[in-house]
Amino acid sequence: MTSLEQLSQDVVRFRDERDWKQFHNPKDVAVSLLLEAGEVLEIFQWKDAAGVAEAAQARKGDLADELADVLCYTLLMAHDLGIDLSAALAAKLRKNALKYPVDKAKGSSSKYTEL
Amino acid sequence: MTSLEQLSQDVVRFRDERDWKQFHNPKDVAVSLLLEAGEVLEIFQWKDAAGVAEAAQARKGDLADELADVLCYTLLMAHDLGIDLSAALAAKLRKNALKYPVDKAKGSSSKYTEL
Amino acid sequence: MTSLEQLSQDVVRFRDERDWKQFHNPKDVAVSLLLEAGEVLEIFQWKDAAGVAEAAQARKGDLADELADVLCYTLLMAHDLGIDLSAALAAKLRKNALKYPVDKAKGSSSKYTEL
Amino acid sequence: MTSLEQLSQDVVRFRDERDWKQFHNPKDVAVSLLLEAGEVLEIFQWKDAAGVAEAAQARKGDLADELADVLCYTLLMAHDLGIDLSAALAAKLRKNALKYPVDKAKGSSSKYTEL
Repeated sequence: MTSLEQLSQDVVRFRDERDWKQFHNPKDVAVSLLLEAGEVLEIFQWKDAAGVAEAAQARKGDLADELADVLCYTLLMAHDLGIDLSAALAAKLRKNALKYPVDKAKGSSSKYTEL
Repeated sequence: MTSLEQLSQDVVRFRDERDWKQFHNPKDVAVSLLLEAGEVLEIFQWKDAAGVAEAAQARKGDLADELADVLCYTLLMAHDLGIDLSAALAAKLRKNALKYPVDKAKGSSSKYTEL
Repeated sequence: MTSLEQLSQDVVRFRDERDWKQFHNPKDVAVSLLLEAGEVLEIFQWKDAAGVAEAAQARKGDLADELADVLCYTLLMAHDLGIDLSAALAAKLRKNALKYPVDKAKGSSSKYTEL
Repeated sequence: MTSLEQLSQDVVRFRDERDWKQFHNPKDVAVSLLLEAGEVLEIFQWKDAAGVAEAAQARKGDLADELADVLCYTLLMAHDLGIDLSAALAAKLRKNALKYPVDKAKGSSSKYTEL
């Protein structure tokens, strides 16, 4: 069980050993984050439910790679902006728990404004 | 220091309490991951370097929220696909260390194919 | 029937009257193009086939708006880069006709590398 | 000077000869539109102003190809949803002209809510 903090340090050290911080303004990191998320989605492009399930198995290694890239840029951006990502996620879940209370949201895909 | 495993359990529990797993096929989760990454980038849309730096401060709360959403969908997808995200990130860093050895890549923004 | 050329002139005139060319480097235009494409997709987020069909009707006006934004940035970028978009589209269709000959590709969603 | 109508017919004919309409629900077309927009942006990934200007020249052919793909999916979606894209663009420009009157918006990158 690796802490998010530890993973963040690993990623930042990888970057700093290569002196890449100079290229990593938040806008460019956000562009790369988006493009990596696109590579995840591309694996499911044009696929119906059966094709998605098949790709999830057959391309599990590629999906792991692309999700690792997404996590990598998420950690870098949080680090560079001084954001505590664990705290941000916990806060987000608390906020969403208010927007989507279990008794109203259970089994519904409606947006909170329509519950 | 929260482990990635713990964060993943928090996110999955939030979803399962609401019985939302039925909507979460990997393709739809990938779409949402991409759209949340877009919301991160939108904060820097049209901004030059000075504007980016200013937005990084002035909208730190929004950025924390959007990065939390990105992390949330990353954790859900990894969980649903049976991917160990810590291991995937460590493997990716090892792979990238071979593609971008420190002595060649230091201070360069070139792609590994051009080093 | 409006020519693509005429539409392009309309969009460029709109921009130049506002002296916005100074903000329109191709990278920022590409970011906006991507974010507008995201707004199209967002209309179908989490929806299954029935929900997609329903949204296609119920939100036709929003879809028209978002597709117009996508076209707008596509025309601006092509104009700024000196690209003849009609010719590019015709060339692309010829190229794809070779990759996907009718007799092989008919009724198949396979990538050309797998035909 | 090719009309948008003509281009749309060319693209639809290309698809229908291959019997691909069955794969083209609007959500999947929107996903592909977004991924193609991502390929445009990828050409400028990590590049500063000088690098963007250089790539705009050196990779003009690739950019033409990717913009053609974006236009292709935009035309297909508009066709399938019964949207008149020329009219939608004209309406959007009129709407934006009200949001961004020339005397207020000239030379400003502010959002209309901040003008």
